[in-house]
Amino acid sequence: MSDNQQWHYENFDPTGSAIGYRITRKLDEVQSPFQKIEIFESTDWGNLMLIDGAMMLTTKDNFFYHEMIAHPALLTHPDPRKVVIIGGGDCGTLREVLKHKGVESAVQCDIDEQVTRMAEKYFPELCDSNDDPRATLMWDDGLAYIKNLEPRSVDVIIVDSTDPVGPAEGLFNKAFFADCFKALRDNGVLVQQSESPLMLLDLIKELRGEMGKAGFAEFQTLPFPQPCYPTGWWSVTMARKGGQGFAFRELPVDLATLYYTGTAHAAGQTLPPFVAQALK
Amino acid sequence: MSDNQQWHYENFDPTGSAIGYRITRKLDEVQSPFQKIEIFESTDWGNLMLIDGAMMLTTKDNFFYHEMIAHPALLTHPDPRKVVIIGGGDCGTLREVLKHKGVESAVQCDIDEQVTRMAEKYFPELCDSNDDPRATLMWDDGLAYIKNLEPRSVDVIIVDSTDPVGPAEGLFNKAFFADCFKALRDNGVLVQQSESPLMLLDLIKELRGEMGKAGFAEFQTLPFPQPCYPTGWWSVTMARKGGQGFAFRELPVDLATLYYTGTAHAAGQTLPPFVAQALK
Repeated sequence: MSDNQQWHYENFDPTGSAIGYRITRKLDEVQSPFQKIEIFESTDWGNLMLIDGAMMLTTKDNFFYHEMIAHPALLTHPDPRKVVIIGGGDCGTLREVLKHKGVESAVQCDIDEQVTRMAEKYFPELCDSNDDPRATLMWDDGLAYIKNLEPRSVDVIIVDSTDPVGPAEGLFNKAFFADCFKALRDNGVLVQQSESPLMLLDLIKELRGEMGKAGFAEFQTLPFPQPCYPTGWWSVTMARKGGQGFAFRELPVDLATLYYTGTAHAAGQTLPPFVAQALK
Repeated sequence: MSDNQQWHYENFDPTGSAIGYRITRKLDEVQSPFQKIEIFESTDWGNLMLIDGAMMLTTKDNFFYHEMIAHPALLTHPDPRKVVIIGGGDCGTLREVLKHKGVESAVQCDIDEQVTRMAEKYFPELCDSNDDPRATLMWDDGLAYIKNLEPRSVDVIIVDSTDPVGPAEGLFNKAFFADCFKALRDNGVLVQQSESPLMLLDLIKELRGEMGKAGFAEFQTLPFPQPCYPTGWWSVTMARKGGQGFAFRELPVDLATLYYTGTAHAAGQTLPPFVAQALK
């Protein structure tokens, strides 16, 4: 690739839309046993990480996603001490989780060590907390890890996965959610990235259905901007094990965020009418 | 263009990012005295309108923008009767404005009649209200139209323009805003589309500065998702002529929206920390 500026696009078939960036060069590429990871340098978005051609994160805008997959779930739980992250190999979610001082242990279990190695090199700011004594990084099968957890041992499970194809396919169905249900303590919270609320509402509906079949009785889908993902509008879906609803604690005053606020969280709880209608 | 599916991209230089769509065919193209207007048919987003290569709207997602440029401003004004739309040739904003029963007259002044002709043909649902007896459609220079308005004769001015280059350049500066200020009644509201709050914060800051120099004392920028615009996250900025702040009325119960809710409006008033910091 030359040093000239070029445009690199991700064509996303399920939404019929594409996102692209003006890039200056490819910084790295590795074929792991699981997937191809590419790193590009862009003119305006910092570095980009793509996995099998799909945009995973940019330096510039990853904070939307990482804050919204971590803080709503942790603040919905009254006192989260033990947190498990499935996927999340770039360590950005782990960093947000460890900003909560009450968290005593956070395990990040991604199938692909190469994702973390690339993050350490090209997104070092996301790996700030990897040496935190409360953090455990492992590279293993998340399905098996959750299945083998001691029942009622975890407060919050965060499923920070790629799209529901390839390695992440098994993270979107009843069998996996049933294992999460079992591993969570009685007032536990599960949160899963749940794709575009504009174009993939059927997937969100199906995801909530699978969570329901697994025993979860209450769901909440929160939309938020995420420029680097298809349609630029994304969502997380939370499920609670008990019947306690989705009231949430205030963000501690010393916990700095770029996007998350209690107001944004509360507002997300009132879905846009077309989304609410579709999820009925 | 063949009948095969192809991808069509808009590379947006100011953000270094691109949006694209899977299209089936080009439906129309016209070179007006002002700009080139193209219509594509897409696989998942309905029809697309591009002006000089820039994505203007899609059938699927234009409601975000049209609702957010119309309802917050009209609900901030206590009793909007006379509304002027500068630009807005696709008539989608006009349709939202006329959903407010108290509005007695709405003038849409776009420089380019061809935009409206194309909308009538390819986005007929946006032109639903063009025959409303309260509506006046004119094709003329918006700058001159505002300049020549009787002082203190308008309640709400909506600037529904293209990007601040080419025909729309004059809609982003003090001279134009000063004419708006003069044309508005004492408690009037001005609202202007104000680009991406992620990548173009300097532009928003400058816009607010120009509004301030023109006499407006209070500003409010509301972000919202807009998948077809660069970064998928867009904003409108309101300015008030009086000192009444930005409290707003409830949406009438019989006024149906797809995205807008009072909750979303209120939430938009608390900007994400990184935006609030930048606009300080």
